[in-house]
Amino acid sequence: MALNEPDTEVLQRLGEITPVHAPTAAYLKEPRGRYTGQAAGVLRPENTAQIAAIMRVCNAHKVGVIPYGGGTGLVGGQVMEGIPRSIILSLERMHAVRDIHASDNVMVVDAGAILQDIQRAAENARRIFPLSLASEGSCQIGGNLATNAGGVNVLRYGNARALCLGLEAVLPDGTVFNGLKRLPKDNTGYDLRDLLIGAEGTLGIITAATLKIFPKPVDIEVAFINVATPQTALDLLNHMAARFGNNISAFELIHRQGLDFLAETGLAFAAPLAGRPEWMVLVECGMGAESGLKERFEDSLAEAFEGNFLQDAAIAQNLAQQRAFWDIRENIPEANRKIGVISSHDISVPVSTIPAFITQGKQIVAKINPAFRVNCFGHLGDGNLHYNVYPPQGVNRAEFDDIRGEIKDSIYDLVESFGGSFSAEHGIGRMKKADLAKYGDTGKLTAMRAIKQALDPNGIMNPGAVI
Amino acid sequence: MALNEPDTEVLQRLGEITPVHAPTAAYLKEPRGRYTGQAAGVLRPENTAQIAAIMRVCNAHKVGVIPYGGGTGLVGGQVMEGIPRSIILSLERMHAVRDIHASDNVMVVDAGAILQDIQRAAENARRIFPLSLASEGSCQIGGNLATNAGGVNVLRYGNARALCLGLEAVLPDGTVFNGLKRLPKDNTGYDLRDLLIGAEGTLGIITAATLKIFPKPVDIEVAFINVATPQTALDLLNHMAARFGNNISAFELIHRQGLDFLAETGLAFAAPLAGRPEWMVLVECGMGAESGLKERFEDSLAEAFEGNFLQDAAIAQNLAQQRAFWDIRENIPEANRKIGVISSHDISVPVSTIPAFITQGKQIVAKINPAFRVNCFGHLGDGNLHYNVYPPQGVNRAEFDDIRGEIKDSIYDLVESFGGSFSAEHGIGRMKKADLAKYGDTGKLTAMRAIKQALDPNGIMNPGAVI
Repeated sequence: MALNEPDTEVLQRLGEITPVHAPTAAYLKEPRGRYTGQAAGVLRPENTAQIAAIMRVCNAHKVGVIPYGGGTGLVGGQVMEGIPRSIILSLERMHAVRDIHASDNVMVVDAGAILQDIQRAAENARRIFPLSLASEGSCQIGGNLATNAGGVNVLRYGNARALCLGLEAVLPDGTVFNGLKRLPKDNTGYDLRDLLIGAEGTLGIITAATLKIFPKPVDIEVAFINVATPQTALDLLNHMAARFGNNISAFELIHRQGLDFLAETGLAFAAPLAGRPEWMVLVECGMGAESGLKERFEDSLAEAFEGNFLQDAAIAQNLAQQRAFWDIRENIPEANRKIGVISSHDISVPVSTIPAFITQGKQIVAKINPAFRVNCFGHLGDGNLHYNVYPPQGVNRAEFDDIRGEIKDSIYDLVESFGGSFSAEHGIGRMKKADLAKYGDTGKLTAMRAIKQALDPNGIMNPGAVI
Repeated sequence: MALNEPDTEVLQRLGEITPVHAPTAAYLKEPRGRYTGQAAGVLRPENTAQIAAIMRVCNAHKVGVIPYGGGTGLVGGQVMEGIPRSIILSLERMHAVRDIHASDNVMVVDAGAILQDIQRAAENARRIFPLSLASEGSCQIGGNLATNAGGVNVLRYGNARALCLGLEAVLPDGTVFNGLKRLPKDNTGYDLRDLLIGAEGTLGIITAATLKIFPKPVDIEVAFINVATPQTALDLLNHMAARFGNNISAFELIHRQGLDFLAETGLAFAAPLAGRPEWMVLVECGMGAESGLKERFEDSLAEAFEGNFLQDAAIAQNLAQQRAFWDIRENIPEANRKIGVISSHDISVPVSTIPAFITQGKQIVAKINPAFRVNCFGHLGDGNLHYNVYPPQGVNRAEFDDIRGEIKDSIYDLVESFGGSFSAEHGIGRMKKADLAKYGDTGKLTAMRAIKQALDPNGIMNPGAVI
């Protein structure tokens, strides 16, 4: 897979399709600050036909192409270091919500549409598009799909993959895949859609998507709950699931460390519960109109209290308080960034094993350095934890750069021993490529390489990412 | 892709792995009676290692392999006519429910497990496995996954694809893909699982699966409803969805013709509604304990009556009546078989366009022969209709064999004009291969051929199916 840097002739041919811009710094950074990219130019095509033309040129000249969405990915999938330099293909000018078919519960959007704009367009049609994550104000749906993004509503609505009915995409040789049908059921051939979803731009460029939208829940209840242990949190989840089933839209585990970090970094919040319990849960239920949810939600928590599944609970009394509860959860990643992580781990294990994983993880980290602080939080209902290790207060993370690898390997080995995943929702990108080679199933890796070779024989798509 | 019939040496080598049986008639038939297969032998391996060994032999000698589940597929995916004869690889001896992890809402099953056995195992753990379809007493989960089966609960729980968390599979060269993790979230590389699901045995053999199970709904309401038109049925669905959202587990459209066929073929049923309305809906809602569903369901239907979304409704008063209502729906395919279809069409269109599709379909069929009877029924909430054309009463379907192609093409052209699918839940098999070539997206077909070539370069997997 010897790639070429685009020469003057190639740049000229690309320029005839759409202007070639010099890459500004914004295109070469990523949120963790671990990579700085290089690129021979940035293209900002306006439509799918232009992308197809670009791909034909790049494929013919073996020039690498990095698909670029909102640039919010956390594993370096959007930045390419080293040479030969590739072309960055940004979807930013293809940001339209093409259509909303409210009566089909479907919308069609360009890949460059900002997630928050999609959410708002759905709301305007009295629907919701439930994908929701910290970067929703700037991430693009094409990137969300390419990385199969998760977020807080996966428990009820599934991840990005589950929310997508169809794709339009350009394959590496410029072939256009027209798969934008708005059908919940279509069994006509291989599932190319799901192959492109989660491939992180290494098999083609997603240019548009048909998305599922849902009737907007009218009755919504949110509570912040003090649970004695992670096991109690699971017991509470099972208790509530028996009553509310798939109407539980979020069930987030929060450790005291997260609230301590908010306080330490000056991110104001009103204490939701008396004291500052070690383990908390943020739960949201949503139902249609006239569901009687409020009373049943209260009943359920009262029963949980009697059953010892919770110590204390605060039910949000109005929309403002619901928002305030969610702000606590959603500001934790910002507090984490301000503290500065030594090593972060977006992991999943079978839901029932989370308590054992947390116990053993604590022992492992303490063995490396008992002064380290762990902020363990995340999507308990999905078995997905953000298990992040921080330096002692007042110490800079850079002092522990040399043992970051040891921490990461210890945690990932533990995850592996639980039959878990070392990347639950962030993907592989460039950061976890070696981990995929180490922990990935060899049969799957063999098949992945064959598929990559078949669809992108010149290896021009997002070179160096994933495999 | 020149395949070989297995010679004595190959048969001997296969026999060293597991006995080679002569193919009895049962392995060479399919439910529609349109194909009669041939095979050089039937293998019934006991475990995944044996399957891997079989694949290595067959791949080395370019011998075709037909994966065989319950044999209930409706598009000829399980039978191969013509020569060179292939090996039938039946999963029937790999039928174990390996594990149930109730607290994870996950079970692990062998590919040869019968769907009904899986449902029962889930029930024993106070869960449900919601995949439900007419052949559940004999179809196997491996086949359900290979064809991405649908059924009556897709509206709430999704099709087979949506119910599968992980797969174990053997690839054509004997490589084993170990992907049985029981994780709702795992973003580590290409989605090989979803590529194998729906590939109808042309890319590998599914040997085991990790399945999602769900808390068993406790409060269940079922109603048979007289709706004036298909459009009213959609209005009713939207009315109910605003209140019950994803607690509506089924919303089935039934035409009078279905009930007429039941009567004509002597399949007894108690009339659920006064008279025999032209259009009916069977709706089921399910919720957790103490949901107050009964009263709310009645309220919702009363409001629908006032809003003119229904003419009449019968709410099942007990489990026996719920079962009786469902029996009517579930016996319709049996009545259809007894009548004998000229041409059947498992199609989907965007949900909101179903009324227009039905109107235009009726005109098209009447133009071909005004005496033809259409039984149009199916999963309205998914936009999936079984649109089947029957001869006039007392006339044998064989008399219309010569125009079956014309009927089918007319319907599929209409489906295409609606942006629909000519195979919503049955797949391609051998019966719809020409249709896939005709109606399939060229970009997708190109990618499919590349993927097939990459994973199965000798073309040994289910030769002649799909592509």
